Amino acid sequence: MDLENFSSRLLQEAVDEFAKLPGIGKKTALRLVLHLLNRDKEEVSQFGNTIIKLRNEIQRCQSCQVISDSDICPICADASRDHTLICVVENSRDVMAIESTHQYQGIYHVLGGIISPMDGIGPSDLNLQSLQEKLAAGEVREIILALSTTMEGDTTNFYLYRKFRGYDIRITTLARGVSIGDDLEYADELTLGKSIMNRTLFENTLSSQ
Amino acid sequence: MDLENFSSRLLQEAVDEFAKLPGIGKKTALRLVLHLLNRDKEEVSQFGNTIIKLRNEIQRCQSCQVISDSDICPICADASRDHTLICVVENSRDVMAIESTHQYQGIYHVLGGIISPMDGIGPSDLNLQSLQEKLAAGEVREIILALSTTMEGDTTNFYLYRKFRGYDIRITTLARGVSIGDDLEYADELTLGKSIMNRTLFENTLSSQ
Repeated sequence: MDLENFSSRLLQEAVDEFAKLPGIGKKTALRLVLHLLNRDKEEVSQFGNTIIKLRNEIQRCQSCQVISDSDICPICADASRDHTLICVVENSRDVMAIESTHQYQGIYHVLGGIISPMDGIGPSDLNLQSLQEKLAAGEVREIILALSTTMEGDTTNFYLYRKFRGYDIRITTLARGVSIGDDLEYADELTLGKSIMNRTLFENTLSSQ
Repeated sequence: MDLENFSSRLLQEAVDEFAKLPGIGKKTALRLVLHLLNRDKEEVSQFGNTIIKLRNEIQRCQSCQVISDSDICPICADASRDHTLICVVENSRDVMAIESTHQYQGIYHVLGGIISPMDGIGPSDLNLQSLQEKLAAGEVREIILALSTTMEGDTTNFYLYRKFRGYDIRITTLARGVSIGDDLEYADELTLGKSIMNRTLFENTLSSQ
C-alpha cells in the first residue's frame, strides 16, 4: 500500500518524523504513531518531553567523553577504579558493552568515531585531547585499544599506536580468537589462525573462570 | 549485552520510553536514541513536539470516525463521492489502504475495533452510532463489510449483518479469491475453493482492467 492517502496532516507529519529514524520505514512509522494515539495524553507528552530533555540536557564526560548527565561521569568519578588503565573505544555504546561484562576495572576514553576516509572522518575528528593530556601528565600506565575488528578499526588502532608509542606506556589490544560457544567448524580462517598463533596456557583459562 | 549499565539517567529514560513502543526492544531503542543525540537540537525538539501535538489535537471525523484534523474528514466532506455507499472497516489504516487502490468512490465507517471476546471487545465497544443514524435516516443504499478474514472479522461481519439486515439496503463483503500475482499451487485450499465457487465471467475481468 502506498501511504500518500493520510486522512490527517498531523498524522502524516508524525509518521514522517518517525520515518527519519534509522531502520524505520513508513509502514512501521504509521504503526508506531497509531499506537501512540491509543495511549493516554500524559504518557505521550512524557515520551515527547523525555526525548527533547535528553537532547537538550545531555553532556559528555569532560574526562572520557562518554554520554553523561554531569561534567564527570560516574566511572571517571569512581576513585576505586584504576585511573592508570584506559580502554579506548569508539562510542558510548561500547562502554556499556564492556561494563556489562563486569570484567574491567579501569576507565575509558571515547573517541566519538573511527578513522574512515570513505565517510570523511580523519584523525582530527577524533576526541583525543583529554587523553593526550593524561598521557603527557604521566598519569597512564596502559591503554587498551578496543575498536571494531574492521579495516577502519585497524587503521585507527595503527594511527593511535604510532601517535602514542613515544610515551612510556603499554599499548594493548583486545584478544582475537574463537568466540565462546562457537562451533570451531564455523569460525572464519583468519580468526582461527590467529587463535592458534596466540594460543594461551590452558591453566590460565581455568583461573580466569 | 545486557543494558543495565547506562552512563546517563537521561539516556536510560529515553531508551525506556522508546522500548514501550510495539516491536521496539531495548537494543533498537538505544540505537534510535543515540541517533537522536547526533541530530540537531531543533530537529529533536520538532520530533518530540510533533508527537505531543498529534496526540493533543487529533480528532475523529464525526461522520465516519476516521482519524482527522477536523470535525469532518476530507472524504466525508467531498460532495463528489457517493454518500449512499459506505465501506465499514476496522481502523483508519484500512481506510488508507483502500484509498490507495483508487478504486472506491463511496465513503467509510470506522468501527474502531472488531468483536474479540479474547481481548474483551464486545459489540458495545464498536463505533456504530453515526452509522446507525445514517441507516435510520434512509441515506444509505449499500454497506460493504471490509473486515479482516479472521475469526474475529467473520464474527463481526455476522453481527453487523444481523443488526442491519432489517434495513432496505444491500449488504456486501469483499470478494475472496486468489491474490493477483500468486502462484496457484501456493494458494490455501479454502481460498482456492471459494475462488472456484465464486468464479467470475472472464469478460468481466477484461473490462475491469
